[in-house]
Amino acid sequence: MADYIPKPEDKFSFGIWTVGWQGVDVFGSAVREPMPAERAVYQLASLGAYGVNFHDNDVFGFDASEAVREERIGAFRKALSDTGLVVTTATTNLFGHPMFKDGAFTANEREVRRFALAKVMRNLDLAASLGAATYIFWGGREGAESGAAKDIRAALDRYAEGLNVLCSYVREQGYPIRFAIEPKPNEPRGDILLPTVGHALAFISALEYPEMVGVNPEIGHEEMAGLNYAHGIAQALWHGKLFHIDLNGQHGPRYDQDLRFGAGNVRGAFWVLDVLEAGGYDGPVHFDYKPPRTEDDAGVWDSAAACMRNYLILREKVRAFRADPEVIAALAESRVASLAEPTLSPGETWRDVSAASVDADALGRRGMGYERLDQLALEHLYGIR
Amino acid sequence: MADYIPKPEDKFSFGIWTVGWQGVDVFGSAVREPMPAERAVYQLASLGAYGVNFHDNDVFGFDASEAVREERIGAFRKALSDTGLVVTTATTNLFGHPMFKDGAFTANEREVRRFALAKVMRNLDLAASLGAATYIFWGGREGAESGAAKDIRAALDRYAEGLNVLCSYVREQGYPIRFAIEPKPNEPRGDILLPTVGHALAFISALEYPEMVGVNPEIGHEEMAGLNYAHGIAQALWHGKLFHIDLNGQHGPRYDQDLRFGAGNVRGAFWVLDVLEAGGYDGPVHFDYKPPRTEDDAGVWDSAAACMRNYLILREKVRAFRADPEVIAALAESRVASLAEPTLSPGETWRDVSAASVDADALGRRGMGYERLDQLALEHLYGIR
Amino acid sequence: MADYIPKPEDKFSFGIWTVGWQGVDVFGSAVREPMPAERAVYQLASLGAYGVNFHDNDVFGFDASEAVREERIGAFRKALSDTGLVVTTATTNLFGHPMFKDGAFTANEREVRRFALAKVMRNLDLAASLGAATYIFWGGREGAESGAAKDIRAALDRYAEGLNVLCSYVREQGYPIRFAIEPKPNEPRGDILLPTVGHALAFISALEYPEMVGVNPEIGHEEMAGLNYAHGIAQALWHGKLFHIDLNGQHGPRYDQDLRFGAGNVRGAFWVLDVLEAGGYDGPVHFDYKPPRTEDDAGVWDSAAACMRNYLILREKVRAFRADPEVIAALAESRVASLAEPTLSPGETWRDVSAASVDADALGRRGMGYERLDQLALEHLYGIR
Amino acid sequence: MADYIPKPEDKFSFGIWTVGWQGVDVFGSAVREPMPAERAVYQLASLGAYGVNFHDNDVFGFDASEAVREERIGAFRKALSDTGLVVTTATTNLFGHPMFKDGAFTANEREVRRFALAKVMRNLDLAASLGAATYIFWGGREGAESGAAKDIRAALDRYAEGLNVLCSYVREQGYPIRFAIEPKPNEPRGDILLPTVGHALAFISALEYPEMVGVNPEIGHEEMAGLNYAHGIAQALWHGKLFHIDLNGQHGPRYDQDLRFGAGNVRGAFWVLDVLEAGGYDGPVHFDYKPPRTEDDAGVWDSAAACMRNYLILREKVRAFRADPEVIAALAESRVASLAEPTLSPGETWRDVSAASVDADALGRRGMGYERLDQLALEHLYGIR
Repeated sequence: MADYIPKPEDKFSFGIWTVGWQGVDVFGSAVREPMPAERAVYQLASLGAYGVNFHDNDVFGFDASEAVREERIGAFRKALSDTGLVVTTATTNLFGHPMFKDGAFTANEREVRRFALAKVMRNLDLAASLGAATYIFWGGREGAESGAAKDIRAALDRYAEGLNVLCSYVREQGYPIRFAIEPKPNEPRGDILLPTVGHALAFISALEYPEMVGVNPEIGHEEMAGLNYAHGIAQALWHGKLFHIDLNGQHGPRYDQDLRFGAGNVRGAFWVLDVLEAGGYDGPVHFDYKPPRTEDDAGVWDSAAACMRNYLILREKVRAFRADPEVIAALAESRVASLAEPTLSPGETWRDVSAASVDADALGRRGMGYERLDQLALEHLYGIR
Repeated sequence: MADYIPKPEDKFSFGIWTVGWQGVDVFGSAVREPMPAERAVYQLASLGAYGVNFHDNDVFGFDASEAVREERIGAFRKALSDTGLVVTTATTNLFGHPMFKDGAFTANEREVRRFALAKVMRNLDLAASLGAATYIFWGGREGAESGAAKDIRAALDRYAEGLNVLCSYVREQGYPIRFAIEPKPNEPRGDILLPTVGHALAFISALEYPEMVGVNPEIGHEEMAGLNYAHGIAQALWHGKLFHIDLNGQHGPRYDQDLRFGAGNVRGAFWVLDVLEAGGYDGPVHFDYKPPRTEDDAGVWDSAAACMRNYLILREKVRAFRADPEVIAALAESRVASLAEPTLSPGETWRDVSAASVDADALGRRGMGYERLDQLALEHLYGIR
Repeated sequence: MADYIPKPEDKFSFGIWTVGWQGVDVFGSAVREPMPAERAVYQLASLGAYGVNFHDNDVFGFDASEAVREERIGAFRKALSDTGLVVTTATTNLFGHPMFKDGAFTANEREVRRFALAKVMRNLDLAASLGAATYIFWGGREGAESGAAKDIRAALDRYAEGLNVLCSYVREQGYPIRFAIEPKPNEPRGDILLPTVGHALAFISALEYPEMVGVNPEIGHEEMAGLNYAHGIAQALWHGKLFHIDLNGQHGPRYDQDLRFGAGNVRGAFWVLDVLEAGGYDGPVHFDYKPPRTEDDAGVWDSAAACMRNYLILREKVRAFRADPEVIAALAESRVASLAEPTLSPGETWRDVSAASVDADALGRRGMGYERLDQLALEHLYGIR
Repeated sequence: MADYIPKPEDKFSFGIWTVGWQGVDVFGSAVREPMPAERAVYQLASLGAYGVNFHDNDVFGFDASEAVREERIGAFRKALSDTGLVVTTATTNLFGHPMFKDGAFTANEREVRRFALAKVMRNLDLAASLGAATYIFWGGREGAESGAAKDIRAALDRYAEGLNVLCSYVREQGYPIRFAIEPKPNEPRGDILLPTVGHALAFISALEYPEMVGVNPEIGHEEMAGLNYAHGIAQALWHGKLFHIDLNGQHGPRYDQDLRFGAGNVRGAFWVLDVLEAGGYDGPVHFDYKPPRTEDDAGVWDSAAACMRNYLILREKVRAFRADPEVIAALAESRVASLAEPTLSPGETWRDVSAASVDADALGRRGMGYERLDQLALEHLYGIR
């Protein structure tokens, strides 16, 4: 067995806001002290992380003066420099301040929309200066609780306009930055625009610079809609759009739990690793979780370390599964590889299949052997093979 | 108040399989007699329907001889002719026979995939001869219960290949037929490919003839994922892809209930009508529901009539809501129309907003008035305004 | 049509915390000013409310000095006296302070459990002095995110111990107060103890003074588990345990939305009224909702008024439905009243039915007419009958 | 590592209907041959099962003549005798025939209710003669799709009446049989009566012979409501009512998946074993699953064997977890055992805690260490400790 020690090539990253979450929720107040961004950096470095992701207001407050802003960024930069941690990714807080209560790019107030663009541009400058290659858009407040409040087609127009403007900005500045949209079905809004990976992928196809924009699917967000996250990222890979990933844990349709990676749908996590390995994903492996309110500072770091450890454990299992001769035989029994074979042979057209006939009853009787195959996977997950 | 009598211009249609459902489920056997397609046609006509939708095997059995097939089609044609009902839409049964237990276009068995294409082509011929303008693809068995059984990216390749071949077929035959994909998240498979409107829209953008393919969203299917159906069809309209709709009722994430239209999420239904009216949808208004097993033949027709009646009732309410001066004032209070105004003024670029500043606190304090607006909508739904 | 003006006999009440919610959630900060309890009282009185419900810390802060506590209670008392509003109900905040992060009665820390009892007793004194007849227990932090953290059977022992001690206290003080447990499946804990009406009812049967304890079911909480709230309160009534109700709105399994009453599952709300009317519930009609963050102070009061208005609208509809001769005929067609007839006739025992034989096929063919009946209900809801 | 071979003392049992499921669902026809009960018995015996559970109509058809009934029972008895398999449990099919479309004990038709009692009594005789100690009631059709169709309180009266009559029957016959109610929230009815473990436990407390009746919770059924199954059976144990268990797999709120045990919520399954071990459950370990439609006969037996194997694997893990010194230390750090200590010391009353004061801030700062503890559990599940 491996020792499960994170290495730089694993590209593990954390949002500053994850370990920095103080535990405020709808029903209770903060249980932990505020965490300056630089403290998160030093601690994450000591755990073996490779990089960090940040919102502008994870580093400095919404109302920070220029002097405070500079001081805070300076401390952040120094920590990055001291530790060698990479800023893999950045994003904008367009949800915390009351002015964003109705959204940012899709707020009914035009002034809010304009300010949101300015806020993103300013943080894009910082992100670029820190070397971030990916910039995330999680539109948590872009949505509605009721039907008349929001003209959805107009909202999609404005959403697209916003991203188009920002793509132009990045292009004209020459920043080597790509955008990634992070879908979520609901919470904190009753229904959020672009609720799933699919909706975001479709939306991207209608943008002005679709090649600059991909998706950042989060396990918990897809599972809140009861969707299979591994299927979701597989479709994103199929479209060439898996620009980033957010790993965590969730127990199906309920509030956004943001459990540490591994501590949710364990079988789902196994197949996530399988898709990432098979799909050749080589971006940052980002954990977007929240240490539960029951934890003190020590618990914060225990849970952060566990995210990386669980990833390494599951990766080892997935590799062992795919290398297991019994699995290889079972995959063949289940004709899994046959699906990679085109339905039409080279040179065939519809004419060649239009009269296809089969022994339907024989095909109906033939078992697929999936239970046996899946049990092998489960036994790899259990660590008994 | 109106009399809520269906008219041909309402374009109400029903699947033959809806009123024809015999009530077989996982736990019990048929409660109603088989219904020949022609009987469904005569009855639906008498209720005021405009059209029908059919699977090949709604008209004739999977194993029907040529003679039986012709006889059954003949009876169907005669009923259509006798009643003037239009075949708005057609589709293929690629899920009932055991041979399709692992899917059709994405079955691991290549023979199944080839036969599925042939089965569709043959029914496309019939659909074309009957004048159907839309052909639906509901891939109910295209999915998996376990992770290793299905290579999702290969499955999407095959799914796309299948649709591309069929687009070629339709083009070369010169059929004036468009395709519409009907998404569903799960049931009867553990997870189904293209689980939501969004996933299907994204997939279409990767097809060879994307202009020929749209979506056919079903209320229940989107609500099984906890998604807002009105938002889903609004996004489909935004993409120019709302080729067809399937209306019914559902109570959130659970088994596929297929309740009659209106008898589920009532407020959701109100906003569905609002989006359809505002979006100028003018395709068939198709009801894809199942009369509950508690009903006898009379109950079947009561429930079918109620689908249309509820549509007319809700349409009247939506129109009254939009015409209500108090609503118009409340929409203005909530700045709803402002969202249609581009965030950048004509000629502006990012430069013009990059320094946008606002009185954030004042904006944060300003209420949106959505509760008042939504209450007006609710009172129109209640019929007390 | 009625004018839908709240009257004292409607017994409408609001939690101080409902209209007082400032809008803090996991993703954003307060959007509204703090609301002193007395302001809520004056405003609610002006809207026509009959009573209020309060947590101790709705009136004074957790850390309030004795002097401040007295001052705040005094202002609250004066407002009650000025307006004539009744304190129908009271409860304790055992979830907001970080010390309760692992629960109160079931916290692993014994010190927390002891303090929780003291905190409740002190507020019971206040509740009694204010005339509250019902005291609510919502154990929002009584639960766990992970399996080993909480010994569930020990937790139920402690939960029961806590309630038993508090029952003794109330009995010995001679307070005319009954307790009501408010179930919730999850949020803010991963899984909460006594997650549904059923679990709470069962738990009560194991208490020392079961007659003193009932349930306070909340629409949203039951619907978060996909359960039928009307069925839940019907079972509570059947057990004689519907001591209080919390009305609001929710859209199925997702985060706790606390929408205003009516603005969620509208058909569900209709049947809630039907059960309350039929069951003779005559306790306070309590609204436990949260004005969305999009609202300013005016929106708060608009939404509060709408809760009461919607109740009156729905009550009128339910009464009209039950009085409608066509409904009465349809109920008879559906043999609904037959269910009230015992299966065994007076004097019969199992012997008399042991050889019961039937024409199973005839019974199988006989329709229940539920679709027609339900359509009549829906048309009353729509206001077109 | 153990060899995971089922032994009689493991008390593994299967419903005849589980391995015998032919794969009929709402969307497709049978994929497997009918399985005579005796074939299931021989095969299950060969896999190492200890017992079986059966519905009357798993052994003989609803319409079977007396002669056929006897012949079929004879073959079943012979197989039991040949193999030594025990009939641990029995139950009645009160859901398959169209006559039960509106329920059995709570059907609006009194004739149906009377016949249902007779049908149960007759099968109780058979169950007793076969030595079944537990008799299950799964009221799958006891429910409704719409609000007026069913008077819920009357339905609960009839449900209770039915069970009371059947308790009398068993008592008077002197059968050593206990009853167990199996809750389910929905499917095949829109909402089912007694939807969760909690509702069933509460209902039992209102029966005439509550000591004769317990619950049979099924993993999938509780998880369809998003509930924590381990918590559910812990509460059932707390009430002394865990008479039977139904193990399988499910992926949260959606259709009833009936996956093999282990192939669903894997972490949940770990904690199920933990509760069963800690709670001293010693009844049959019953698997109520359905081999997916993709499987042929070989797949049926592969999946059945895997249910037992997964149980043994998880049991081993749970025992190792509880014996691990690091876990023991972590449990102490998390003060888990403190919860077993009464909140009041011996002899204390409310007086002794009424003035309890604490250092609330210090308690608020103290971490619970749950993340570390849970990670240890997860690593046992992964098999890396």
